[in-house]
Amino acid sequence: MTGMRTAIIAGQGRLPAALAGLMAEPPLVAAVDGFPPDGLTVDLRVRIERLVPFLRALERDGVGQVIFAGAVARPRLDPALLDEATATLLPRLMGAMASGDDATLRVVIELFEEFGFRVVGVDEVAHELLPGAGVLVGTVSPMDEADAARAAAIVAALGSVDVGQGAVVAQGLCLGVEALPGTDVLLAQVAEIGVLRPDPARGRGVFYKAAKPGQDRRIDLPTLGPETLRGAAAAGLGGVAFQAGSVICLDLSEMHRLAGELGLFLWARP
Amino acid sequence: MTGMRTAIIAGQGRLPAALAGLMAEPPLVAAVDGFPPDGLTVDLRVRIERLVPFLRALERDGVGQVIFAGAVARPRLDPALLDEATATLLPRLMGAMASGDDATLRVVIELFEEFGFRVVGVDEVAHELLPGAGVLVGTVSPMDEADAARAAAIVAALGSVDVGQGAVVAQGLCLGVEALPGTDVLLAQVAEIGVLRPDPARGRGVFYKAAKPGQDRRIDLPTLGPETLRGAAAAGLGGVAFQAGSVICLDLSEMHRLAGELGLFLWARP
Repeated sequence: MTGMRTAIIAGQGRLPAALAGLMAEPPLVAAVDGFPPDGLTVDLRVRIERLVPFLRALERDGVGQVIFAGAVARPRLDPALLDEATATLLPRLMGAMASGDDATLRVVIELFEEFGFRVVGVDEVAHELLPGAGVLVGTVSPMDEADAARAAAIVAALGSVDVGQGAVVAQGLCLGVEALPGTDVLLAQVAEIGVLRPDPARGRGVFYKAAKPGQDRRIDLPTLGPETLRGAAAAGLGGVAFQAGSVICLDLSEMHRLAGELGLFLWARP
Repeated sequence: MTGMRTAIIAGQGRLPAALAGLMAEPPLVAAVDGFPPDGLTVDLRVRIERLVPFLRALERDGVGQVIFAGAVARPRLDPALLDEATATLLPRLMGAMASGDDATLRVVIELFEEFGFRVVGVDEVAHELLPGAGVLVGTVSPMDEADAARAAAIVAALGSVDVGQGAVVAQGLCLGVEALPGTDVLLAQVAEIGVLRPDPARGRGVFYKAAKPGQDRRIDLPTLGPETLRGAAAAGLGGVAFQAGSVICLDLSEMHRLAGELGLFLWARP
């Protein structure tokens, strides 16, 4: 059926390949220039300066719906590469880029929709990547629950100003908050500042990750993977918690195994 | 006049001595055990486990008002040190400590007031430590203004969940946010992650500091000093901005000199 093929608009990391592996029909893979996905053959390349010719190429290839997956840093625009049609969209794109990542992504989704594509989320094509509520590994003490609740409140406040999606809380104290550099940098920073937990009996603390309040679930859902667990263990935390149904877990079976090995809990918090 | 002497309840750092130097009458200096102030002779020591005997000692010494100044980490309580009167206050103190630093400080202020002391803020005894609106050093570009405005929104959101009072924003991107480890650690982290500024023409970014929304101004006002400027320069930032009238500047003349030497702007933002 024409127009029903799915394209993955892929950024860096392992998510695009994980998604492709779970889809019934092989997708067309378009990679954002400079942000190659891991372990996936790329069919098309896209640069923001040549967005309109790219959208027309997708049309020609029979693509009807697209899914965004993988990490892309905010690109610097090279005016020399602009085509005329994309140039007319530039004021909208630049305005959005000045207002933050969420605004940029919202405008990109709008543009795809204006060109007639359906933009779908990970929920729709690979629900199994988003674990529902439950303690997946280990045990969660009342102290851990309290730390996760405080971290959830912090992440919600940060999300409202379009900053990160994660925070580390131990014994009620906020040891660090995720900003542009991301989760791995945050956990390394917490490891480096060392132990700031006044009372050993009150738990080792938690890294918590969640979607932003009101986040468009078709783009930029937070992601955890085995490296998050390694980072949490190195930071001396007791476990990792995340918002059930809204956080992508890459390689969940390896995460199960590794959390057990590292003695961490892994909790999809309702 | 009896009961009108002022006591500084001093934590770590240079603020207690700076305050004492600006007061008309020499204050009584009470130091929180384990957090000695710099360059100040200590008259009394206080531990939270012996709060009531300490309050009675202040009364005996003719103290009528107190001012809190300097940094204190959340203490671990040693039950063996508790006296009977302080023990009756413990449920209130512990409950507050579990809810965060602001809650703890609010309860400590309440207790001082219940014992008949007036609790005053830095504004009242040393207004000159809180610079009013104006560009103190250098020039602030429209890009810097935009970065400072975004940082102010982030700090306000963080303050609403009782996290830090500072953030680093460059070209609209949030490079880091202050949590428990404080300003110096944040700036060192931004220095370590290196340059994440897509467009050199759009400014080097700003560290911004402000009081929390609704903060009790008698306690824990944010503080800047020469070391903040050194940290901002090492992080590659263009300058430091802060909320006019609500941020304590330690050693302002040295901050003027140093900002000039380091090529940073210093801006008390209205």
